[in-house]
Amino acid sequence: MYSAEYLKSFVTEVLKKIGCSDKDAGIVADVLITADLRGIESHGVIRFKDYFELWKNGRINVTPDIKITHETLSTAVVDGDRGMGPVVASYAMNVAIEKAKNAGTCWVAVNNSNHFGIAGYYSMLALKHDMIGIAMTNANPLVAPTFSIDKLLGTNPIAVAIPAGKQPPFVADFATTPIARGKLDLLSKKGLKASTGFVQDKEGNPSDDPDIIKKGGTMLTLGGDREHGSHKGYCMSAVVDIFSSVLAGANFGPFVPPSVAFLPVLEKSVGKGTGHFFGAMRIDAFQKKEDFKKKMDEWIETFRNARSAKEQSKVLIPGDVERELYEINLKKGIEMLPVVVGYLKEIGKSAGVDFIKKR
Amino acid sequence: MYSAEYLKSFVTEVLKKIGCSDKDAGIVADVLITADLRGIESHGVIRFKDYFELWKNGRINVTPDIKITHETLSTAVVDGDRGMGPVVASYAMNVAIEKAKNAGTCWVAVNNSNHFGIAGYYSMLALKHDMIGIAMTNANPLVAPTFSIDKLLGTNPIAVAIPAGKQPPFVADFATTPIARGKLDLLSKKGLKASTGFVQDKEGNPSDDPDIIKKGGTMLTLGGDREHGSHKGYCMSAVVDIFSSVLAGANFGPFVPPSVAFLPVLEKSVGKGTGHFFGAMRIDAFQKKEDFKKKMDEWIETFRNARSAKEQSKVLIPGDVERELYEINLKKGIEMLPVVVGYLKEIGKSAGVDFIKKR
Repeated sequence: MYSAEYLKSFVTEVLKKIGCSDKDAGIVADVLITADLRGIESHGVIRFKDYFELWKNGRINVTPDIKITHETLSTAVVDGDRGMGPVVASYAMNVAIEKAKNAGTCWVAVNNSNHFGIAGYYSMLALKHDMIGIAMTNANPLVAPTFSIDKLLGTNPIAVAIPAGKQPPFVADFATTPIARGKLDLLSKKGLKASTGFVQDKEGNPSDDPDIIKKGGTMLTLGGDREHGSHKGYCMSAVVDIFSSVLAGANFGPFVPPSVAFLPVLEKSVGKGTGHFFGAMRIDAFQKKEDFKKKMDEWIETFRNARSAKEQSKVLIPGDVERELYEINLKKGIEMLPVVVGYLKEIGKSAGVDFIKKR
Repeated sequence: MYSAEYLKSFVTEVLKKIGCSDKDAGIVADVLITADLRGIESHGVIRFKDYFELWKNGRINVTPDIKITHETLSTAVVDGDRGMGPVVASYAMNVAIEKAKNAGTCWVAVNNSNHFGIAGYYSMLALKHDMIGIAMTNANPLVAPTFSIDKLLGTNPIAVAIPAGKQPPFVADFATTPIARGKLDLLSKKGLKASTGFVQDKEGNPSDDPDIIKKGGTMLTLGGDREHGSHKGYCMSAVVDIFSSVLAGANFGPFVPPSVAFLPVLEKSVGKGTGHFFGAMRIDAFQKKEDFKKKMDEWIETFRNARSAKEQSKVLIPGDVERELYEINLKKGIEMLPVVVGYLKEIGKSAGVDFIKKR
């Protein structure tokens, strides 16, 4: 068990050693450890190795000159100058929030960025400003559109955070595939099969092999197959990709750069780096704040009080599970696989910062 | 077979007889017949009976005073004054387009409206202005959120239309359930079973009975069950509902009024009528128009040229099928079930407009 505080200070110290500003180092640490606290380990400190290796390979710039390259009253395009994803994304989301104060809403498309961690983090930055926050990103290609066997899309997540009054906020944060990539690896490690609709083999036959991607297979979009609505998952994933790439000036679909250093840089590029898309909408640009929050509480209570199906859990509001885990993990500490502890020790050694067992 | 032209003129004449302005009558006719032309019969002229009956019952206002009740640079709230959905929705989408010309984007939340037909129609209004159009609506409750057996959500569709250059535009228009409500009726009429993940019985057990909703069952969100990602379909559907209701001042989830006259007005109301949410984003608020369109063509061509899975169709771009059907049906005419022809004759008789067999 490691305390969130210790892990944050370790990541921050390492990043400062390799040239990040104090502020940028703190942001990356906060994004990664917030993912662990919220129970999304696949996007937590486990990713620090990839960020570190990409920096070592010259594919991440730790002193980026992030800037707005184009704007209107309610939009901006941000060039991330190959910075760490969390640094670029936080900058862009803050641009959206600041400009929404004047225009009511603001929408920021980002190019030249990298893997940004959990989308929910950025959407939640809007909450304390009484705004709805939206965040999405494209990601390296693993997913085939309906009818295809080609990896043209990433798991392309969408996050929407909506403030409430007495109730905690609504925070949806989900990939546009039935499951996350990391969960396939977990199934494989446990010797379990993948459920119908998760993956297909290289010819497009249904498969239950969680390792099928290594054998030329692909992941499928939410819905699984055409009959069960995979074309709707494809639509959503495509919209996330287009907003994050064509609108942003970043690479689209199959040309999104790998987020791990062991995969080579792609030969063809159709834009700059990885792309994201953010939105901030002031709730009082639509309704009186108090009215909105009261009604949002009523919405949440209506859903929370719904009847459960036989032998099922109570109805959850998006964000419930992650918020509860956050509180638990903050007290209890974060459990890490030995292999992740190994990564951190290795990184620490390489950067000259001791990783010590704590808590 | 009936020509689109004839059906439009019939609907227009009837609506003028009952008090609609020429312009409003033309809009409703265009929205309904466009759905038939695009092959979405469930939202076509078949719905005219419901609109007509709701008017007869005093639940639709054919001379609405639609107005903006609140606005900022990039937002507006529109009160539809109980008008026909297509009239209110067209007004609101045009507000979004006009305000986006100045602000870069605009987002319009609508209350006090009714069933608006196909979401895609409104999103596509943005295309000729070189804007991305977004449309969504809540709908009468038929769908249970993950883990529940209560009808708390509608089929809540989302449409996104994105301009391209030489390629036709990308037009996604999809419900946040695996299938549309109307398709269940179709399965029942054909004596077929519903696939896994479409519906559940009143206790929450999986069901293959396409008539289960009449027996206390519910539809399920995209994904079907928790294992296959139904919580992601629930998140999407919830976001559509909240934007269209809490943000708009309309009724949410279980309180959305029925879109058919044979169901009674609900006892409890938590807002005004049915709600919608629209967005318009100028593409040149992000990129140079020409660059965007060229890149969008490249996106489309990349997907169109992807390899198909074994025994599957070529990869489709959202909107392809509907656009092809539109061209075919415009020439060939629109086929209608005898029952729909019956409705139209009945409406015609009631309004004093002859419905004659034509082509």
